[in-house]
Amino acid sequence: MIEFTDDSAGLADAAGFATAAVACDIREKGTDRLDLALVSSATPCTAAGVFTRNDVKAAPVRVCREILDLGKPVHGLVANSGNANACTGEQGLVDARDMAQRAATAMRVPHNSFLVCSTGRIGRAMPMPRILAGIDQAAAALATTPAESRRAAEAILTSDTRPKTCTAGFLWQGRKVTVAAMAKGAGMIQPNMATMLAFLCTDAAAPVSLLHAVLLDATHRTFNAITVDGDMSTNDTVLLLANGASGVNIAAAPAPARALFAQAVEQVCARLAEKIVGDGEKISKVVEILVRGARDDAAAEHVARAIGNSLLVKSSWFGEDPNWGRVLDAAGYARTGLIEEKLDMFYDETPVLAHGAAQNQNLAQWKLVVKKPRFRIALDLRLGAGSYRLLASDLTEGYVNYNKSE
Amino acid sequence: MIEFTDDSAGLADAAGFATAAVACDIREKGTDRLDLALVSSATPCTAAGVFTRNDVKAAPVRVCREILDLGKPVHGLVANSGNANACTGEQGLVDARDMAQRAATAMRVPHNSFLVCSTGRIGRAMPMPRILAGIDQAAAALATTPAESRRAAEAILTSDTRPKTCTAGFLWQGRKVTVAAMAKGAGMIQPNMATMLAFLCTDAAAPVSLLHAVLLDATHRTFNAITVDGDMSTNDTVLLLANGASGVNIAAAPAPARALFAQAVEQVCARLAEKIVGDGEKISKVVEILVRGARDDAAAEHVARAIGNSLLVKSSWFGEDPNWGRVLDAAGYARTGLIEEKLDMFYDETPVLAHGAAQNQNLAQWKLVVKKPRFRIALDLRLGAGSYRLLASDLTEGYVNYNKSE
Repeated sequence: MIEFTDDSAGLADAAGFATAAVACDIREKGTDRLDLALVSSATPCTAAGVFTRNDVKAAPVRVCREILDLGKPVHGLVANSGNANACTGEQGLVDARDMAQRAATAMRVPHNSFLVCSTGRIGRAMPMPRILAGIDQAAAALATTPAESRRAAEAILTSDTRPKTCTAGFLWQGRKVTVAAMAKGAGMIQPNMATMLAFLCTDAAAPVSLLHAVLLDATHRTFNAITVDGDMSTNDTVLLLANGASGVNIAAAPAPARALFAQAVEQVCARLAEKIVGDGEKISKVVEILVRGARDDAAAEHVARAIGNSLLVKSSWFGEDPNWGRVLDAAGYARTGLIEEKLDMFYDETPVLAHGAAQNQNLAQWKLVVKKPRFRIALDLRLGAGSYRLLASDLTEGYVNYNKSE
Repeated sequence: MIEFTDDSAGLADAAGFATAAVACDIREKGTDRLDLALVSSATPCTAAGVFTRNDVKAAPVRVCREILDLGKPVHGLVANSGNANACTGEQGLVDARDMAQRAATAMRVPHNSFLVCSTGRIGRAMPMPRILAGIDQAAAALATTPAESRRAAEAILTSDTRPKTCTAGFLWQGRKVTVAAMAKGAGMIQPNMATMLAFLCTDAAAPVSLLHAVLLDATHRTFNAITVDGDMSTNDTVLLLANGASGVNIAAAPAPARALFAQAVEQVCARLAEKIVGDGEKISKVVEILVRGARDDAAAEHVARAIGNSLLVKSSWFGEDPNWGRVLDAAGYARTGLIEEKLDMFYDETPVLAHGAAQNQNLAQWKLVVKKPRFRIALDLRLGAGSYRLLASDLTEGYVNYNKSE
C-alpha cells in the first residue's frame, strides 16, 4: 500500500514544495559549505511541530512555537546549520524572528508564516547580515528540482556524514499522496531528539489537530526511541507541513485513508530515526534493544534506556565483547524491580540467559552476533506486558576524540 | 579536634583489628597478585552496612544483608577481588555463604559472624577450592602490623591504580578513638556507589542503630555523590565495624562525642570518595559540580547528575574546552524547570554566565581553569534554597579503550 523510497530527493518529492540551498559561511570559516535551506509551498499549509523538552530552548524553537500557536497558515521554513542560536539571550530571539520575517518578506507572504530552525554551535551570536542576504538569495533560487532538494538536505547537516532523506506515498482514489522528508542528526541523540531536525512535507490536506496527533504519535515511537550519547539538545525540532496539493483531504476521507497517512508519516520518521542513530558521531554499531515482559511500558523504557546509555555496555559493544553481565547490571540499576531469576536474554536469536541462568554453551554464537554492525538484544523480564524498543549506538574512542573540543 | 591521616596504614590503625592478605589466583591467570583480604577483631563487633540499590544484587551483598539482619555480633569480614560473584545464581549464594562460614570456622567464632564481599568480573563461577584454602591461609597470617594492613588494602583492588586508605581519630576524655578505612573503586562509579567497596573499622563502641544512622548519612553525602561513568554495580558495599577496644562507648557519651564520631566517619568517607573518583578508570580530571538555588535538593541533584554524566560535557572536560553551552544544555535536560535567564555559572571563581548572559570577556580565564586537574563548576539557579555537590570525572579515549572488553 505504501510506496517507500529511501535516500529520495527529499522535500520536493511532495507536490507544490520548492526548496533552495545557499552557502552563507555561518560557521565564519570562509568556506562555501551549504548552510542555509529554504522550503516554500506555492499554497498555504497547515503545520504541526514537536520540540525538545529541554528546559533550555533555543531561540528558533521558541519562535516556531510562537508562530504555530497563532494557528495561521504557514508558507514554509528557513533552516541553517553552523550556529544553533541557543543560549543567545534576547538578541537570539530577535535574530530568529528576523530570519522568519525576512523569509516571509522575500516570498511576499504574511509575517509569521515562515518557521525557523537552527543547529550547530551553542552560545554564539548569529552572523545576521550574511544570513539575511542568504535568505534573499535562497528565495530567488527556489526550485522544485530533485537536485535542489538534495542540496537543501545537505545544507542542514552538521557533524553528519551523509544527507538523510526518504519519501513515502500512497494512492487514494486515484490520487497520489506523498510524505517527503529530510533530517539531520548525529551527536546528542537521546530521548527527545537531541540536536536533530526533521522536516516532513506532504501534499495531503489535513487540519493542524490531525497533523499534530499523527506527528506526536510517530515521534514517540521513532525519534524519541533512539540514543547515541544520552544527551538532549536545546534545538530539537520535527515539523510537518501539509499543503493539500494532492487534492486529498485526509480529515474528510474515511478511516483507511487516515490510517495510510499516519503509516506513511511513521515510516518516514522511523527510517530517518534509524539513519540518525546509524550516523551518530563516530559510532561503529547500531544495537536494537527490545525489552518485553515489563510491568508496564514505562518500566520497559527505563530498562532499555539504562542499557542503551550505559558507558560500560556501549564500550563493550565497540569492543565486540558479548558482555551480558554489564547489560544485566544496567538493567538492574534502572530499578524497576526486575527479578534476576526470571530474566531471559537473547543476542539476536541466541539465548544468553534463560530464567537468569547463563547459557555459556552459546559463547561462540554470541561472539558472532556482536561482531555484526547491527544486532538485537532482547530481554524478557517475565513480569507483565510492558515493552519498549530503543535503537542505540556504541561508544567509541573516536566519539570522545571528536567531542573533546569544538 | 579530628586528627586525620591520609594514605594511612588502613584498618589496623583501629585498636583490636587484625588483617591479612593472600594471593589465591582468583582471576585464574596464574599470577601471585594479592586478591583476598581477611579482617578480624579480637572481640565481637557491632556492624552496619549500606549496599547497592541495583535490582540485580550480587550474592555476597545478599549474604551480608542476611547476616546483618540477624542482629548478632560480627567478628570480621572476608573480601576478594577478581570475581564479583554476581549473576551466578543459586551456586553464587552457596559460595558466598561458604566463604563467610569458612572464615568463621578458621577463626573459631560462631557461624554468621563474618561478612563477605566480592568485586571483579560478573557472571563467572567462583574458584572455590582456592578461595577456601586462601581464607585458611589468611586466618593463619592475621597481624596487626601496618604492613599487613596495607597489603589488605591492595588485595581488594581491581582496576584501581593505587590503594585507598585513610584514618581519622579524636580524643575523648583522654582516650583515643580511631576510625580507620580502606576502599576500592574505579569504573562504574555513580550514584549508589557502583563497583566500590569501603570498609571502616572503629575501636569505639556503638549500637547497630547508631552505626547505621551515621553510616547512611555519611554515605549519602560522600560515596553517593560521585560519578565516573554513571553506572551502578551489583556489588557496592560500605561496612562499618565497631569493636569498642578504645573503651569509649559513643551511645553512652554526651552529644559532643557522638558529633565527633559522626564527623570522623564522614571525613573518612569523603576522603575515600574523592580518592575513588580521582582514580576512575583512565580519567584525567576531577570536576566538582556545585548546584545552588534549586527549588529543592532533589532538583539540584538532578541538575548536577545530568551535567556530571553528560558524555558531551565529560568529553569537553577531557579536551580542556570551556564549553559552557554543553553544561547549560545538560542542566536543561534534567528538566527541573530552570530558567535560562536567571542562571549564574562560574568556573572556579570566574563568572561564565550572569543572569543567563555569557561573560565572554573571561574566555582566557575559563581556559586556565579547565586546564587544571581539578576545578569547580558552580551553578546558581536562583529559584530556591536547594543545593547539591557532585564529584565527577571526565571521559577519555582511554576509558573507552580500557572498557571495550574485559
